[in-house]
Amino acid sequence: MNATIPGALRAAAPVFADAAAAFIAANGFDKPTLVISRDRVAAQYDTLQAGLGQAHIHYAVKANPAPEIIRTLVKKGSGFDAASRQEIELCLGQGAKASSISFGNTIKRASDIAFAHSAGVTLFAADSEAELDKIAKHAPGARVYVRLIVENALADWPLSRKFGCSASSLPALLDHAVAVGLQPYGLSFHVGSQTREAAFWNPVLDQIAPLWHAARAAGHDLQLLNIGGGFPAFYGQTIQAPRAYAAAVMGAIRARFGDVPQIMAEPGRGMVAEAGHIVAEVMLVSRKSEDDLHRWVYLDVGRFSGLAETEGEAIRYQFITRHDGGETGPCVLAGPSCDSADILYEKRPVQLPLALRDGDRIVIRNCGAYTSSYSSIGFNGFPPLDVVVL
Amino acid sequence: MNATIPGALRAAAPVFADAAAAFIAANGFDKPTLVISRDRVAAQYDTLQAGLGQAHIHYAVKANPAPEIIRTLVKKGSGFDAASRQEIELCLGQGAKASSISFGNTIKRASDIAFAHSAGVTLFAADSEAELDKIAKHAPGARVYVRLIVENALADWPLSRKFGCSASSLPALLDHAVAVGLQPYGLSFHVGSQTREAAFWNPVLDQIAPLWHAARAAGHDLQLLNIGGGFPAFYGQTIQAPRAYAAAVMGAIRARFGDVPQIMAEPGRGMVAEAGHIVAEVMLVSRKSEDDLHRWVYLDVGRFSGLAETEGEAIRYQFITRHDGGETGPCVLAGPSCDSADILYEKRPVQLPLALRDGDRIVIRNCGAYTSSYSSIGFNGFPPLDVVVL
Repeated sequence: MNATIPGALRAAAPVFADAAAAFIAANGFDKPTLVISRDRVAAQYDTLQAGLGQAHIHYAVKANPAPEIIRTLVKKGSGFDAASRQEIELCLGQGAKASSISFGNTIKRASDIAFAHSAGVTLFAADSEAELDKIAKHAPGARVYVRLIVENALADWPLSRKFGCSASSLPALLDHAVAVGLQPYGLSFHVGSQTREAAFWNPVLDQIAPLWHAARAAGHDLQLLNIGGGFPAFYGQTIQAPRAYAAAVMGAIRARFGDVPQIMAEPGRGMVAEAGHIVAEVMLVSRKSEDDLHRWVYLDVGRFSGLAETEGEAIRYQFITRHDGGETGPCVLAGPSCDSADILYEKRPVQLPLALRDGDRIVIRNCGAYTSSYSSIGFNGFPPLDVVVL
Repeated sequence: MNATIPGALRAAAPVFADAAAAFIAANGFDKPTLVISRDRVAAQYDTLQAGLGQAHIHYAVKANPAPEIIRTLVKKGSGFDAASRQEIELCLGQGAKASSISFGNTIKRASDIAFAHSAGVTLFAADSEAELDKIAKHAPGARVYVRLIVENALADWPLSRKFGCSASSLPALLDHAVAVGLQPYGLSFHVGSQTREAAFWNPVLDQIAPLWHAARAAGHDLQLLNIGGGFPAFYGQTIQAPRAYAAAVMGAIRARFGDVPQIMAEPGRGMVAEAGHIVAEVMLVSRKSEDDLHRWVYLDVGRFSGLAETEGEAIRYQFITRHDGGETGPCVLAGPSCDSADILYEKRPVQLPLALRDGDRIVIRNCGAYTSSYSSIGFNGFPPLDVVVL
């Protein structure tokens, strides 16, 4: 993948890509640990920003809220997409200006809206009249962007209908925002998590662009197009290089939207996933019966201690062991808890070395996003995923 | 359900059942909170033990590891089924004797086996040669019970094949235990979570009994039948009353196994689920478009903050609001996070009052099991589920 990263990063990227791996190789760990490199995050920020051009990055804090990563991104000039009061406080605590933070959750506690307003946050997401009413009451006069439901079968993890309003509801919602004293500032959408090719954005942009133009024609002076996240990470399947990907998305937006005053992008996975790896341990290798073709491999990390995104086998991580290169066989992979749902990959078993034994280290690649903060506080007594930020 | 609880508990149960609800009614909460009653847990212990007769209860700590609950059960004379070193330490710290603790996870870290051994735990689960080898090395001479895979289509939540060996592997595993110096002490199985009627155990007992008799005939002096969990809680669908249920299971065991020296039962859900309720708040009520028949109702608690068992809509909780009795309509129910998978019930929508609004309190019944310890440490910045133990 690095071969297609243009310019100065072509040389630097392999070094950055290896910082976490090098640390893991040089150290011992007595529990599952995410090791993540700030330098690699900073380099990814530069790469994405180079491709995005005029668009401003608002990092999706939920992907990895490690304070050191937030501070690094504050220094780079990033904005922040916050899901809660706590994420706003985190960003402010790491030096972010309130003006760089958007409150992007369409489901906000009233008292959290009031807190954000008092802290100086002026940009809020909404997808319903009731949410607009809450914002109008607790953050009077705020700028709001309305999130739209989109259909996208091309994302690796298409989103549900949980967020966004239907296209037919948009005009009334924009009018309602005006009626309750808010500033309808823009539109937002999400192409779906892990959208591997920029071209996959086109059907979604085709849905949003006419709504954008219609809203402006109806007299709403929209300033902001929030294109959300969806920027992919490398999990084994080919993805487009990040700078070229971002530039292609921006080109597709220009072609459909023309001159948009402000564009905001919210990469989370695309910013941090490749910057970190989880080092874990094989707890057990067994067969359920002697004639079973596949083995069961149990790790000391599972769905409830960091690998939540293996739900439905959606995100398929890559594994590195000291036996790599030797003969392999199919394995069902599972976590360490006494929970029958704590299985990572069963429908599509994973090929792992036949020499793998309990006690062996296993490194899970590109786990910087949506791992540590998902882990349970202590399911089965296991502590949350440990995090080391380099 | 209480109407079928026999004897002295018939009068007492309604009071116990209401302790958490009464506390919730009398107090304000600024975040989602599980309120759970120790008296209700103690009463349930008595009820289950009365039905189980000679069988000894080993509470499945993972269901709810609140220290106060463990201490209550220590005082009642309960044993404990621990999934990890941390759960063993928890039980010891609350006064449990090492001899009352079984290390029931079939996937154990070698150093945790050594810890348990040094702490005086002598009873371990296994379902593979490799695990037996680990136990033999780190807890030499220990008593082991071998877990078997069973098929049971009658549980509300049938278990995967993650735990247990096939029947055909059992003889070799028992022989291997002897060969490595362990004491093959018994067999274990699990009927599946939330097995609502005692009669549903019969097909599983029919699978295990011949294996038990064959192992004894082969010269293994098995002492222990560990019947695991599966004891149900009330989530709206009829369940058999706990004492009658337990007594019926014991009768079915006697009929198939004859005189078993030791029987162990591991209720988790069946011990604590009904002792606690979650008090939560409605964050938003909306429709995706004007002509949608159903509403979306978003709570401040979701799959990543305590309601993990709504995955696949497996456990369907009951909800209490101040509008109950008024007209209702179908709702998709979702959590507060910016995660599209954080939806509780969508395939089978929930009927909730039309008068429901953001800011309304909502009480989720019988949430004492598998909630608090599952919750994430801070996904989206939301704190873990708060717990109040009465």
